[in-house]
Amino acid sequence: MYVYEHKLRVRYAETDQMGYVYYGNYAAYYEVARTEMLRVTGISYKELEEMGVMMPVVEMQTKYHTPAKYDELITIRITIKEHPSVRIKFEYELFDEAGKLLNTGMTQLVFVDMLKNRPCKPPQIFVDKLQSYYLK
Amino acid sequence: MYVYEHKLRVRYAETDQMGYVYYGNYAAYYEVARTEMLRVTGISYKELEEMGVMMPVVEMQTKYHTPAKYDELITIRITIKEHPSVRIKFEYELFDEAGKLLNTGMTQLVFVDMLKNRPCKPPQIFVDKLQSYYLK
Amino acid sequence: MYVYEHKLRVRYAETDQMGYVYYGNYAAYYEVARTEMLRVTGISYKELEEMGVMMPVVEMQTKYHTPAKYDELITIRITIKEHPSVRIKFEYELFDEAGKLLNTGMTQLVFVDMLKNRPCKPPQIFVDKLQSYYLK
Amino acid sequence: MYVYEHKLRVRYAETDQMGYVYYGNYAAYYEVARTEMLRVTGISYKELEEMGVMMPVVEMQTKYHTPAKYDELITIRITIKEHPSVRIKFEYELFDEAGKLLNTGMTQLVFVDMLKNRPCKPPQIFVDKLQSYYLK
Repeated sequence: MYVYEHKLRVRYAETDQMGYVYYGNYAAYYEVARTEMLRVTGISYKELEEMGVMMPVVEMQTKYHTPAKYDELITIRITIKEHPSVRIKFEYELFDEAGKLLNTGMTQLVFVDMLKNRPCKPPQIFVDKLQSYYLK
Repeated sequence: MYVYEHKLRVRYAETDQMGYVYYGNYAAYYEVARTEMLRVTGISYKELEEMGVMMPVVEMQTKYHTPAKYDELITIRITIKEHPSVRIKFEYELFDEAGKLLNTGMTQLVFVDMLKNRPCKPPQIFVDKLQSYYLK
Repeated sequence: MYVYEHKLRVRYAETDQMGYVYYGNYAAYYEVARTEMLRVTGISYKELEEMGVMMPVVEMQTKYHTPAKYDELITIRITIKEHPSVRIKFEYELFDEAGKLLNTGMTQLVFVDMLKNRPCKPPQIFVDKLQSYYLK
Repeated sequence: MYVYEHKLRVRYAETDQMGYVYYGNYAAYYEVARTEMLRVTGISYKELEEMGVMMPVVEMQTKYHTPAKYDELITIRITIKEHPSVRIKFEYELFDEAGKLLNTGMTQLVFVDMLKNRPCKPPQIFVDKLQSYYLK
């Protein structure tokens, strides 16, 4: 099971008039964490797209436990529990600096051959790169 | 069962480099539809906040069936199936102009007394307003 | 001189914890007004891109006179004062429902041939369509 | 003259279908750089608000020289050239990893006493903190 942690700081732009992070902005936080996780495996999402494979999100689930606030440094723990097939599932847990759980979520993404505009298997190099992380 | 439809047009700002609406932007679409639905009942969300009650989202689920694209005129069908208690659940179906299903989702919101910063029952006037819609 | 007005309602997503519209969101308001103005001329921005011409923004200036707030219905008055060349300049004035000036701005956009990735003259049909508006 | 540099990576959420960073998103980049610059002086923007002073933006100017792209690591150079009075002016230069100029901008912000909802002088501690940076 591959676990990765990424930290980011809440921007003023991401708050709303409740004084909390707007509920729609967590999706971008998830995306940033995915991007950084993939970079660490050795093949970035940008490189995947350059290889002709994109990964649109087909499902998202989110629970908002405690509102995140402006300027907080948030830790996003991201986990891949199952081997990817045509789809890959990421799970997220967000914590504030005191370790309090803010948010949990999951996204299902599908690998899409950009030329054919059809779902496809992940590139072998991607599977290989990720494999080494599962073995750890 | 109360059903309401709202139309909105996809902004360039909401697309990403896939040429689709970014997956994080549907949450704002849901919010716009909720806002307009509440306005029609006779008590707007803005008025609710002025009465000291806010409604943060505590859960969201989304399925992305077909990507929405720039400049499309999208219909958001929004449904309340259960009577609200401390929580209220909205369900969403998004369609393009040809009637094709783009996206389905649901959000759970909680009524919060802003002074006490604690969950509360919805204001009676809100329940009454909504009640008349259930009876239709 | 071509003047067009478009109305839009401030979304919760667009507010920040000051209780105002976040200063970065006016750019999207300008874009929506441009899009609707072009649609009225008879050739939409989407059609322009389909013809192989895109219009990136090369300059923006904004003055924030009075903060716009959640749920306000804002009128965006958009003006083209000069005939477009390789560039086109739009000017904006935003008003609240009472007619109070909220914001003024301008954007310079450049016509870009998407195939050559180089600045180009606007398509003749676009110039023609716009011309008829100047004559009014 | 106080100069500070902050790096941030372009998010997928920030791109649009041109494949560039959406022109409205630079305002948030400026804000992040301001926030980090203020933090380094020893008094963060969050602390300023907790002291009852907020800093809404009253003017912004931006020039888009070269489009920023997904996943690029951008350097934001931020400069304060004049001593703040009731207003403070920040200037920005954005560069890609090769040192190419992407964007230049400036923002004027005003200090506002949140209780009185009126412009005010910056808190003395803020002026003092900033002063030490000018002397370097």
